[in-house]
Amino acid sequence: MAHTVGGGSLLIAWQLKDKRVLIVGGGEVASQRIDSILTTDAHITVVSPHDGLNPRTRRFINEHTHRIAYHDRPFAGLEELQGMDMVLTALDDVELSRSICNMSRNARIPVNAADIPDSCDFYFGSQIRDGPLQIMISTNGNGPRMANLVKKKLQNALSGVEGQTITKVGELRAQLKIRAPGVGGELGKKRMKWMTSVCNAWEMEELALLDDMMMHKLLDDGWENDRVPTFAEVGGKANPRSFNITWFPAVGPTIGFVAGALCTLLVVAARRR
Amino acid sequence: MAHTVGGGSLLIAWQLKDKRVLIVGGGEVASQRIDSILTTDAHITVVSPHDGLNPRTRRFINEHTHRIAYHDRPFAGLEELQGMDMVLTALDDVELSRSICNMSRNARIPVNAADIPDSCDFYFGSQIRDGPLQIMISTNGNGPRMANLVKKKLQNALSGVEGQTITKVGELRAQLKIRAPGVGGELGKKRMKWMTSVCNAWEMEELALLDDMMMHKLLDDGWENDRVPTFAEVGGKANPRSFNITWFPAVGPTIGFVAGALCTLLVVAARRR
Repeated sequence: MAHTVGGGSLLIAWQLKDKRVLIVGGGEVASQRIDSILTTDAHITVVSPHDGLNPRTRRFINEHTHRIAYHDRPFAGLEELQGMDMVLTALDDVELSRSICNMSRNARIPVNAADIPDSCDFYFGSQIRDGPLQIMISTNGNGPRMANLVKKKLQNALSGVEGQTITKVGELRAQLKIRAPGVGGELGKKRMKWMTSVCNAWEMEELALLDDMMMHKLLDDGWENDRVPTFAEVGGKANPRSFNITWFPAVGPTIGFVAGALCTLLVVAARRR
Repeated sequence: MAHTVGGGSLLIAWQLKDKRVLIVGGGEVASQRIDSILTTDAHITVVSPHDGLNPRTRRFINEHTHRIAYHDRPFAGLEELQGMDMVLTALDDVELSRSICNMSRNARIPVNAADIPDSCDFYFGSQIRDGPLQIMISTNGNGPRMANLVKKKLQNALSGVEGQTITKVGELRAQLKIRAPGVGGELGKKRMKWMTSVCNAWEMEELALLDDMMMHKLLDDGWENDRVPTFAEVGGKANPRSFNITWFPAVGPTIGFVAGALCTLLVVAARRR
């Protein structure tokens, strides 16, 4: 896979905790935008005449009353942008959309206008989410359909344990920081090195099974002695679900071998009679 | 895989074409930031005393003189932010880093401070790039090491043809827009529907092999008649590389079957003698 210099976007994880996002419009694309913003902790304001709401947008507004403020009116002008941290337009009216983009840009508020790529500070992409794990697929405007095909490939590659693993590693790091507090410096490097060693030595499936008692033992026996105990050493027991995953490649040939032997025996037995 | 509401970041593809990015610092993290920004078309300014540059940062500055402006000095104050569209700090000095964050936020310039998550408008994540295809993996601050492990899983799931496929689909869409121009409306929907049908009907490996002649035939025979010709119909020839990929799962059992049959025959033959 080629590393390519230039021509790309900067893929980033934008922080929206306690921020305010304005969505202008209520149709299908607006409902996709609401869905995207609901994955964050932002406060959402939707501005759209009621008859412009599609069923999904209406459902979001009804189900998330504590997160979404809804104003049944067309976009009223510059005052709508007051206090907003991000603006998303999802309108059929391209001229209005462009004008909202310009107002937002003048106010230095990041803005995305559906269907007008050259007016956007940023694009959306296909997303995969599993707890703290988020994955984004961008084709840089070369086709949302392709992004979805790639998304399916990637989803198939994930075992489903990744989110849980990342949560547990985050908890372990937090507990380590309580034992060995401070920002940066030599201690910070030592913490990072030890965490990396644990993540390298253990399987993802093992990390996902860490409980409070195992974490304490891991820190007591491991961090304090500058070593990495095994999963079994801290009391880990193999999960029946993760049973012998490495043997699976041998199953096909084995079944084939037995079937081949049986068929041959049958043929030989039939010919003897 | 659970869909999770709340608690996440908004993963977006930030547009930096012809924008200006300030990087304060010159160490290892600064070199990672330069690497990230070089994937875009932004102009980069690096501010750091020369003795604070690590070898990789120095190499980037020497190799990309047309993209990177380097100032051999410590951060000089608010005037450094003049005309900047994004600010990234990569400093050991946490206080200075925080103060640059505050200046940037007051000037409404998006800012990321390495190692100070609560001061960041956005985070970076692990990235995969293949031409127009970009993938980002974020663990929402729960461990860069885990992001890299997930990255490896995803890289293994990609065949390497995806970037080329997306490029060709983008070219096809561009040619279609020349034939059937205009933004939005019924025609826009018809274009999108036809493109989706083609992407669904063809294999990725086939789309990647589209050349100019095949694209013309696909548009002549397909778009004009509102149908989707097959790869072979527009003159496509199977790539030897993509040979019978769907047969691979049968190879193991088949080899097993033959081996089982042979072994049984040998045993039977040995017993007859």
